[in-house]
Amino acid sequence: MAKPSSISGFPEFLPGEQIAFNRAVDIIRANYEKAGAVPIETPAVERSDTLLAKGGNDKEIYGIRRLNADSGDDGKDLALHFDLTVPLARYVAQYQRDLVFPFRRYQIQPVWRGERAQAGRYRQFYQCDIDVIGDGELSLLNDAEMPYIIHGIFSDMQIGDFNIHINNRKILQGMFAGFSLSGEAIHEAIGFVDAIEKTGIDKVKENLAGLGLKVASIDELLELFALKEETGHAEIFSLLQSKSYNDLYERGVDELKQVIQAVENLGVPDNRYTIDLSIARGLDYYTGTIYETKLVQYPELGSICSGGRYDELTGLFSKRKYPGVGISIGLTRLLPRLMELGVIKVPLPSVAPVLVANLQAEYSGEYLKYGGMLRQAGINTEVYLENKKLNAQMKYANRKGIRVVILAGEDEFKDNSVVIKNMAAGEQETVPLNEMVKKVQVILGGTIS
Amino acid sequence: MAKPSSISGFPEFLPGEQIAFNRAVDIIRANYEKAGAVPIETPAVERSDTLLAKGGNDKEIYGIRRLNADSGDDGKDLALHFDLTVPLARYVAQYQRDLVFPFRRYQIQPVWRGERAQAGRYRQFYQCDIDVIGDGELSLLNDAEMPYIIHGIFSDMQIGDFNIHINNRKILQGMFAGFSLSGEAIHEAIGFVDAIEKTGIDKVKENLAGLGLKVASIDELLELFALKEETGHAEIFSLLQSKSYNDLYERGVDELKQVIQAVENLGVPDNRYTIDLSIARGLDYYTGTIYETKLVQYPELGSICSGGRYDELTGLFSKRKYPGVGISIGLTRLLPRLMELGVIKVPLPSVAPVLVANLQAEYSGEYLKYGGMLRQAGINTEVYLENKKLNAQMKYANRKGIRVVILAGEDEFKDNSVVIKNMAAGEQETVPLNEMVKKVQVILGGTIS
Repeated sequence: MAKPSSISGFPEFLPGEQIAFNRAVDIIRANYEKAGAVPIETPAVERSDTLLAKGGNDKEIYGIRRLNADSGDDGKDLALHFDLTVPLARYVAQYQRDLVFPFRRYQIQPVWRGERAQAGRYRQFYQCDIDVIGDGELSLLNDAEMPYIIHGIFSDMQIGDFNIHINNRKILQGMFAGFSLSGEAIHEAIGFVDAIEKTGIDKVKENLAGLGLKVASIDELLELFALKEETGHAEIFSLLQSKSYNDLYERGVDELKQVIQAVENLGVPDNRYTIDLSIARGLDYYTGTIYETKLVQYPELGSICSGGRYDELTGLFSKRKYPGVGISIGLTRLLPRLMELGVIKVPLPSVAPVLVANLQAEYSGEYLKYGGMLRQAGINTEVYLENKKLNAQMKYANRKGIRVVILAGEDEFKDNSVVIKNMAAGEQETVPLNEMVKKVQVILGGTIS
Repeated sequence: MAKPSSISGFPEFLPGEQIAFNRAVDIIRANYEKAGAVPIETPAVERSDTLLAKGGNDKEIYGIRRLNADSGDDGKDLALHFDLTVPLARYVAQYQRDLVFPFRRYQIQPVWRGERAQAGRYRQFYQCDIDVIGDGELSLLNDAEMPYIIHGIFSDMQIGDFNIHINNRKILQGMFAGFSLSGEAIHEAIGFVDAIEKTGIDKVKENLAGLGLKVASIDELLELFALKEETGHAEIFSLLQSKSYNDLYERGVDELKQVIQAVENLGVPDNRYTIDLSIARGLDYYTGTIYETKLVQYPELGSICSGGRYDELTGLFSKRKYPGVGISIGLTRLLPRLMELGVIKVPLPSVAPVLVANLQAEYSGEYLKYGGMLRQAGINTEVYLENKKLNAQMKYANRKGIRVVILAGEDEFKDNSVVIKNMAAGEQETVPLNEMVKKVQVILGGTIS
């Protein structure tokens, strides 16, 4: 007997957890579609060259190869995608003539990374991405749609207070350039700022001083970082606009102001977003607006949804310029943590609230009919078909969180009635068969699911 | 510039096709859940041993290995699953204590097969599976749920007339044993019957004669195969019960009769299912009820949904016996064919029926507000944010199949109104802003989508 066991880094869920996961995906998908994004799905596999050319690390990319391959097949040709951005870039370049721009698309798929087996390291995980891609140019106002979408998703998920932190990379870059740092040093400085939560503010100061930044410059920076969530937007912008390092900085401030104004116009509540000049996003990729999202009560989770604006999606694949803005939710990591914390309750493993019990096997044809009647009315229903005692059937119902059990035996068939048992209330009543569906609807509608 | 191109065998869709695909998945999922099946998802990857032990062909299984792996890593350890049945078997054996039996589960995921690159051969494709797994035993009535579910799915998909062919493997096996064939010859004979559509009836006769079957026996068999869809169930069963080859045959007839009766009780219309004694399903795996589903107008598509009853799911992984019954839909193959045939129309690439146009950039804040109002009412809405002429915006709307465009310029802002353009009707009217949402709802509700 082979003892089956999980493979490190390749998570899977029990049915209740999977139901919770799918609900979260449904919420994300509904909010992406509400903003008009169309779905696409790319194959799990891209050419290895494509992945490596776009910044993939060959130690972390899984190639695929038939277990018993022809000897000529070197197996380096095809590989599993490590994110959804490279496939998007390839897709946009490949189908540019068929797509309608601005191209709003979402993509919810697993990605694979050849991490070392280690607790908490995922080698397969879902990314839930939305991006808007312009052909040549893309209005800054698209940047405001992202906080709007983030707000919709996490409100619908009901995971408590969250805060969308918004910044613009040009502000930091402009300031560092204004402090006379050069290209490589700016890159390093942004890396130090990005690590602020891990290292603490003193370490950031020390690191920046190490790059040659003057004490006065560091203080100017820290003044901005120290701005509190309570600080009004007007006050923040008046502070930002009182300084003038260079064009880049000023453009950053101006962009941030426009985006914040548009987020407000879209109706995102004030307490859901914050200007946070200390977020930097590690990737060089981003060139303007950047986002991070934090759960107020669980800052230790880090950012649960991040993204930003980039100037150039397709790079190697196309001469045309495709700027974009997008966000990503790493649901495979997020959801188990939310379930552990009790922020999301793991539902009992049923998608059907109703069970038709099997009291006497000779009536099974009737039980199937009753099941058919309930399903016809749009009510997910299980019919218990095994020859088990009622006790076992009620245990089955309880383990699955079934809310209504339909019972019918000799007496009920005689007068064309059924017994409807409301499991939560612990009550049951006998009703005429032709009222069964309506009665069940009332119980299901009247109870919080 | 790397010219991006598709990889043979790894299909992907344009957005309109993807929308059609996702709609089909939603229909399948809703019907699986209506019958009370819970979702599970297993990782793309299993241990290679697991896949090979359960009948996988090492020439067709893709192993995965980091492109730049440590030298000690032989890369034969992990591989992509080639179906969803082996992962289900491993999952059931692994979590048997946590699962509630009968375990009704569905699983909609891609699978991978290392086929040679060739037109029409898929190396990645979706399977949409539902199975009910019993712990030790499983009522035959579960077999009747499958045609019920198939009927629900293809009715909802609106792909024209279809017919679910139902048989029981024990009938064929019993007859061949009754004709004195031995184990291996029975296996071959069933293979010949399974190929009947490809080879024609004469070839089947010839092949069976080659196995030593007498002319009289072959005629008895062909009498059953020749039963027409119009033949009443009573007549078929009276013919079947007039024969008595052996216990296996009689059990098969009895099971088939019970299943057909239960399918009727579940309310599946008569014209949607047929007893077809000529279907055999190639896999040895099946031991009782078997199903195939055919589109009446497009028999050339072959079976679009197949499955059956099996005695033993987990085999190598567990000493317990887990009988099951299930079906599978190969959607990646089916859907493009239905689109080619025009059975399913490819929708225009939009999930949002409404576009708020951008008439004057200085009012963009207002356009965003209008978008927010419509979305708030549950209407998927795009806001056009680029600085393009109205012509370009209307072209965008037309290419995407947008149904309603909201227009507002200086005049409308003055008197707090908007122009609502109904694209299909080619009509537009001016309404007060506070009636916009209601008016759009009327247009969307009143037009067939």
